[in-house]
Amino acid sequence: MANTSNPLGFGVKPVTVTQLAGLNTLGISMARIDYAPWGINPPHTHPRATEILTVLEGSLEVGFVTSNIENRHISKVLHKGDVFVFPVNLVHYQRNVANTNAVAIVALSSQNPGVIPIANVVFGSNPDISNDVLAKAFQTSDDVISNIRFNF
Amino acid sequence: MANTSNPLGFGVKPVTVTQLAGLNTLGISMARIDYAPWGINPPHTHPRATEILTVLEGSLEVGFVTSNIENRHISKVLHKGDVFVFPVNLVHYQRNVANTNAVAIVALSSQNPGVIPIANVVFGSNPDISNDVLAKAFQTSDDVISNIRFNF
Amino acid sequence: MANTSNPLGFGVKPVTVTQLAGLNTLGISMARIDYAPWGINPPHTHPRATEILTVLEGSLEVGFVTSNIENRHISKVLHKGDVFVFPVNLVHYQRNVANTNAVAIVALSSQNPGVIPIANVVFGSNPDISNDVLAKAFQTSDDVISNIRFNF
Amino acid sequence: MANTSNPLGFGVKPVTVTQLAGLNTLGISMARIDYAPWGINPPHTHPRATEILTVLEGSLEVGFVTSNIENRHISKVLHKGDVFVFPVNLVHYQRNVANTNAVAIVALSSQNPGVIPIANVVFGSNPDISNDVLAKAFQTSDDVISNIRFNF
Amino acid sequence: MANTSNPLGFGVKPVTVTQLAGLNTLGISMARIDYAPWGINPPHTHPRATEILTVLEGSLEVGFVTSNIENRHISKVLHKGDVFVFPVNLVHYQRNVANTNAVAIVALSSQNPGVIPIANVVFGSNPDISNDVLAKAFQTSDDVISNIRFNF
Amino acid sequence: MANTSNPLGFGVKPVTVTQLAGLNTLGISMARIDYAPWGINPPHTHPRATEILTVLEGSLEVGFVTSNIENRHISKVLHKGDVFVFPVNLVHYQRNVANTNAVAIVALSSQNPGVIPIANVVFGSNPDISNDVLAKAFQTSDDVISNIRFNF
Repeated sequence: MANTSNPLGFGVKPVTVTQLAGLNTLGISMARIDYAPWGINPPHTHPRATEILTVLEGSLEVGFVTSNIENRHISKVLHKGDVFVFPVNLVHYQRNVANTNAVAIVALSSQNPGVIPIANVVFGSNPDISNDVLAKAFQTSDDVISNIRFNF
Repeated sequence: MANTSNPLGFGVKPVTVTQLAGLNTLGISMARIDYAPWGINPPHTHPRATEILTVLEGSLEVGFVTSNIENRHISKVLHKGDVFVFPVNLVHYQRNVANTNAVAIVALSSQNPGVIPIANVVFGSNPDISNDVLAKAFQTSDDVISNIRFNF
Repeated sequence: MANTSNPLGFGVKPVTVTQLAGLNTLGISMARIDYAPWGINPPHTHPRATEILTVLEGSLEVGFVTSNIENRHISKVLHKGDVFVFPVNLVHYQRNVANTNAVAIVALSSQNPGVIPIANVVFGSNPDISNDVLAKAFQTSDDVISNIRFNF
Repeated sequence: MANTSNPLGFGVKPVTVTQLAGLNTLGISMARIDYAPWGINPPHTHPRATEILTVLEGSLEVGFVTSNIENRHISKVLHKGDVFVFPVNLVHYQRNVANTNAVAIVALSSQNPGVIPIANVVFGSNPDISNDVLAKAFQTSDDVISNIRFNF
Repeated sequence: MANTSNPLGFGVKPVTVTQLAGLNTLGISMARIDYAPWGINPPHTHPRATEILTVLEGSLEVGFVTSNIENRHISKVLHKGDVFVFPVNLVHYQRNVANTNAVAIVALSSQNPGVIPIANVVFGSNPDISNDVLAKAFQTSDDVISNIRFNF
Repeated sequence: MANTSNPLGFGVKPVTVTQLAGLNTLGISMARIDYAPWGINPPHTHPRATEILTVLEGSLEVGFVTSNIENRHISKVLHKGDVFVFPVNLVHYQRNVANTNAVAIVALSSQNPGVIPIANVVFGSNPDISNDVLAKAFQTSDDVISNIRFNF
């Protein structure tokens, strides 16, 4: 079981080529994801993989957003045994929608899928992306950008 | 020249398979990007392409962020004739850093590269991603999320 | 849970492009495999996929054989939570090595992995492969071949 | 000419990247196959290549079996100058169906196609696959399995 | 600007993996091409890339020839801002069709596209292809072949 | 046997997806090539395939030229049973170097390899490439170009 004692309430135990060298060149990996009640795996992309998810315990809201200019949000509530797929490179997330723990097994179509958590990459990069770029992109003020950045 | 009369101050004239059917299966496309003074092409990814950019006029700050857990921000100021590359699926942006117009030609390694503008996908999807997911992801309050979403 | 009331004592619930059309072109699929006590998933290959397996319940002996001229048999006993990988196109199998049921989740690097169960393909093809070919291949008599074929 | 003095009555002279280093990365290889009268190239797969065959001398029965659940056996008798194709990863064989020698040239769509001779991999692996697995897979007794294994 | 003081009246400034190591594995490159009045970029192929071209200044005749047995010549005169595509591996060329300089930006779908200038490869190889082969191929005399070869 | 009664003294019997529909998607094809004494298969490229050749009868000089700026000509005389490889997209040829017929079997790493015979594409395209382009490319006079073109 992965540790979920963090602000987001989720934890991941990956088995990629980093953990299992024999996966090299084979184009697949797996992970177990644990969710505290109402925990979320925040919006992210995998730069090199499609993801397929099956729920082992609990209930999860899962969703992804299609590319511009539609930006269509497709989501569903899954229960034990349900399966869902997140197409390669689209922004997606999962949320535990119950007061009990949830567990999922996911597989990814790369031995080294990578992960780009949107909020961390945009607000927590090192060094910072300049406030001006983010304020215009999110159509808000420099102050709001600075406040959000403070927690990353 | 592409129209730059918008809040972000940039415009794109793409030549992908949508505009030029003969590109089908050939794995390449091009675009001209115009930037008003201090205009930005906001943080985005291309789900199916690496991008290479050359500056025709003016000066541009360009940057991308590597994937988790480094989230390293690599940026540079380019002048006329300079070339830069944005690796496939990484979040990247450009910003005009002068009081004059700027122009760039970019090429992408797909006839149908797609674009995922981060802010639009996260705050402007249809239907919305729930406030709870975004508040936790950006580690801020529901109110801040609602305010940002208002402009998308 | 998949039905395991058959001579081999195993059952599969696949989620490939046949069951979930949205998997098309995405290069991944999943399946749940149930094993009765001492049930086996007999030697087979997948013509289009590597497979990764994680044990949800029970204990499984798993193995694969490398290609000629080594023909090396690599096997391991797995317990709950263990992960193993079967490289694309190699002959592999699983066996429940306990008196209790076992369950595994597998993922495959194709939306349409296919399966070639060795014994069925060689002895149960339609029409038959001639006895002469199989007798020489297995270095045995026509009678033994006929007897084995009888059950397919 | 390859040596055919063996129980199966066939021999192969391959030209893969092992024999001709210049083939590296080029995705092709060739082989000459000689068949004694009634000799067979027993059921096998190539894990990384489709095979195309042309008969230079004699007459060959050639066949392959499609994947589960059809397991359809497609075969044909070829004469000098005839061409046949064995799709990637399907089990296939050739048999000389005359009292004279036969010769074929084959090409494979990989510089390193590999070969998995079914009988050798299943009954001649090192170490053995346990009798119990094979007896269930071939739906026969442990004694029959032991007898077959004896010759490998 | 690339130097065009040569018999053909054209010059290329490439940005491939040779000039920009960061392009490695990314599948794209760019080049600026300068043309003196009536300068030509002679018939050539790129063994690993499709090419897309946009005219920055002047007017260019561009063309390619399809493969055998059609050998169809497709050409067009382009002006500033026009875009054209040369499909991978087809013989193509550009010619400045004005009394002023011309400039184009091209992008190629490989970080290492390579170039095979037909005349140089056939008449200027090292060592020579024998006169007999070329005389028959070009259906002319040994003398004509020798005369052409003299300048390479 | 293919007909060799033509100015070049060679003939090809291909087995590609055009002749054998079952090759579709399988990435391989074959051909038999016959050569009259001193016949040549003139310099050409295959836009989608590497080629491997084995000599069945006679003696052949075979060669290819590497890409710019080396333009290195690699050639060899082959006898019965010898094998040679022409890397994808490089200009190559074969020449019978004896007073007897020669025969080769070739395989190509595509079901639809295509062929670009250099002389035909450059001098026999439809419509013509303008004399000016070819005269500059081959560094010769318009008259020589016109004379060569006359036979195509």
